[in-house]
Amino acid sequence: MRILILGGDGYLGWPTAMRFSARGHDVFLVDNFARRRWHHEHGTDSLTPIGGLADRIDAWRDVSGRDIHAFVGSIEDGEFLDRVVAEVLPDAVVHYGEQPSAPYSMISRRHAVETQQTNVIGNLNLLWSLRDRVPECHLVKLGTMGEYGTPNIDIEEGFLEITHKGRTDVLPFPKLPGSLYHLSKVHDSHNIHFACRIWGLRATDLNQGVVYGIETEETAMDERLCTRFDYDEIFGTALNRFCVQAVIGHPLTVYGKGGQTRGFLNIRDTLQCVELAVSNPAQGGEFRVFNQFTEQFTVLELAELAQRAGAELGYEVEVEHFDNPRVEQEEHYYNAANTKLRELGLKPHYLGEELVRSMLNTIERYRGRIISRAIAPKTQWRPGEAEANAAQLSAAAASQAQLSRA
Amino acid sequence: MRILILGGDGYLGWPTAMRFSARGHDVFLVDNFARRRWHHEHGTDSLTPIGGLADRIDAWRDVSGRDIHAFVGSIEDGEFLDRVVAEVLPDAVVHYGEQPSAPYSMISRRHAVETQQTNVIGNLNLLWSLRDRVPECHLVKLGTMGEYGTPNIDIEEGFLEITHKGRTDVLPFPKLPGSLYHLSKVHDSHNIHFACRIWGLRATDLNQGVVYGIETEETAMDERLCTRFDYDEIFGTALNRFCVQAVIGHPLTVYGKGGQTRGFLNIRDTLQCVELAVSNPAQGGEFRVFNQFTEQFTVLELAELAQRAGAELGYEVEVEHFDNPRVEQEEHYYNAANTKLRELGLKPHYLGEELVRSMLNTIERYRGRIISRAIAPKTQWRPGEAEANAAQLSAAAASQAQLSRA
Repeated sequence: MRILILGGDGYLGWPTAMRFSARGHDVFLVDNFARRRWHHEHGTDSLTPIGGLADRIDAWRDVSGRDIHAFVGSIEDGEFLDRVVAEVLPDAVVHYGEQPSAPYSMISRRHAVETQQTNVIGNLNLLWSLRDRVPECHLVKLGTMGEYGTPNIDIEEGFLEITHKGRTDVLPFPKLPGSLYHLSKVHDSHNIHFACRIWGLRATDLNQGVVYGIETEETAMDERLCTRFDYDEIFGTALNRFCVQAVIGHPLTVYGKGGQTRGFLNIRDTLQCVELAVSNPAQGGEFRVFNQFTEQFTVLELAELAQRAGAELGYEVEVEHFDNPRVEQEEHYYNAANTKLRELGLKPHYLGEELVRSMLNTIERYRGRIISRAIAPKTQWRPGEAEANAAQLSAAAASQAQLSRA
Repeated sequence: MRILILGGDGYLGWPTAMRFSARGHDVFLVDNFARRRWHHEHGTDSLTPIGGLADRIDAWRDVSGRDIHAFVGSIEDGEFLDRVVAEVLPDAVVHYGEQPSAPYSMISRRHAVETQQTNVIGNLNLLWSLRDRVPECHLVKLGTMGEYGTPNIDIEEGFLEITHKGRTDVLPFPKLPGSLYHLSKVHDSHNIHFACRIWGLRATDLNQGVVYGIETEETAMDERLCTRFDYDEIFGTALNRFCVQAVIGHPLTVYGKGGQTRGFLNIRDTLQCVELAVSNPAQGGEFRVFNQFTEQFTVLELAELAQRAGAELGYEVEVEHFDNPRVEQEEHYYNAANTKLRELGLKPHYLGEELVRSMLNTIERYRGRIISRAIAPKTQWRPGEAEANAAQLSAAAASQAQLSRA
């Protein structure tokens, strides 16, 4: 198959590209290096020393003897994307090419607009190119479990049979997303559903949980093939961030009570799921939603797991409850369905202390690269609090300056 | 009150501005004249001879002795909008400032992107300015009944109590919008709901039905105060378009079977509803949804009404079933709630032959201005059909050319 991966330079995009290439598919990437640029802007970086995309592609050729083709550009640029789709004529598009951080989308108006623009307009451009160039192509789109929020009913996979005043219909599951990033994914889902209904496109929306882990089969083959690993407050996700914090002795940053329950999965299972979706395409006109996670945990459970695994390796790990920078329920009902990918054959890698210890060992190798300034939560969901925080920090700096003069 | 009206040069925006001004409020407008530009691009125009915005404001001052203040610019330009909000410090914002046409959004990728960009990013900019400048301000946002689509259950006002597997929650009503324009309004609704939940803003989302009519109390005061009236396939809505067709002897363009049921309301009732919403603001943190229409009709019922009223005035009116350019159900269940605005005091102007005859008489006055080329439906929802239509047209043109040569 000819597989086009948008966001192919990213945490998941690059391992996905190698996986499909290893399986004998013709793989094409698009990336605009936005993630690298955002890290430059925030003075942060991947824990793992990733090479440039061209170097990684060369390394993959050395290791596997196979080529991966890259196009550099932004999918918000519809003309660019359309030329790529027309040239590649993909059988499947795996779309990771979005701004993926909730805190990033909440920093300021500029960041919010950039997020919804990049994600919604980029995805809309893609839908038109599929419609005009390859209407039979299967779109595999990365959404997020965060689209659902935390309703007081069981979360189903995309749709819900509703009986109301004696009549029944199957309708899109109502969404209560928790950030302007999560909203952008909700908008995408609605746009894709429409394209399937009206234009007959075929799509699978993978509502993914929080991904953890560093290694996949292919990244483990050669150090030059490793994927990025983020642990800062903007791009780091819970368990990955906790593991880095454990290694450097930073208290684990649990937001609020830590009773927030979410779905999680190993990066190896992300690749399995995407492969299963691509190998079992949606029908023409079908908009299919899979909830892509393997286990549910509270944030506090994850922190305690990292604490236990860390202790066995001799790290002293504290759990600290930070004032929650987000606006979210810290204790709530949560029960989400995730049977569809299992029915297709997903064999989960469950989370345990052994996996966490192996992550801690990998992080230890790179501890010299850790930038600790950007780990504590600063981005605030509520207006005024960011300013209050800044005031507090500068008050602290002022009293520090007085002390120095004293 | 200080009232800021976005899209204040439009069909509804201008009469709304005069209404609030007549009631003694301080009224401020924003417009970028996009609607006038889109008409230039399509070779169409308002049936009514509307003056420039500055001329209309002068005329209103002549008639009422009151000033309306205008800012010219685009709300997609967040810096511009933020300066306006900071200067006006409104108590209420009435937001009509969006691309309002479903067919326009389906013409091409460029039109689709322009629609979602203008609407979603413009509205997102507004939410940030409200958050930062006037968090107590009441946002009255024009949405559309088309956000709901035609589900097989009763349509409620924005939210639905759902019991599922023994648990219950009140969740946003699931949406099945029928065009990329309607989708932009769904995205707006989700973004606004979020801003109320997380930032404590207050908002009323008016899910408006199809508006018909030409006159309001204020536009009737002086010819220079008339509002625009569109009847072309892009910006004209069903009844308004049918009335123009009746006057010039064009067959009434019913799409498909005409069994499509929608909510409708008189332009006078739009002003009543907006006034009721502004006078009875939402609470801080509340996202309130009102379904804003007074009656339900099928498209065919409207065409037959225009036919009867036309016949009484001596017009010969045919109803023609055009191949439906849209993808939509032509026979379906439809029962939408609309009690909340009545509870606030809405006194509907119901539709009858008398009103249609008065519209026909007004249209007759301006019949010399009618541009008939843009009345028949050309914009196609399905890919390929627009091209097929174009091919048919150029084949017809070619055979016409052959005839001329013969």
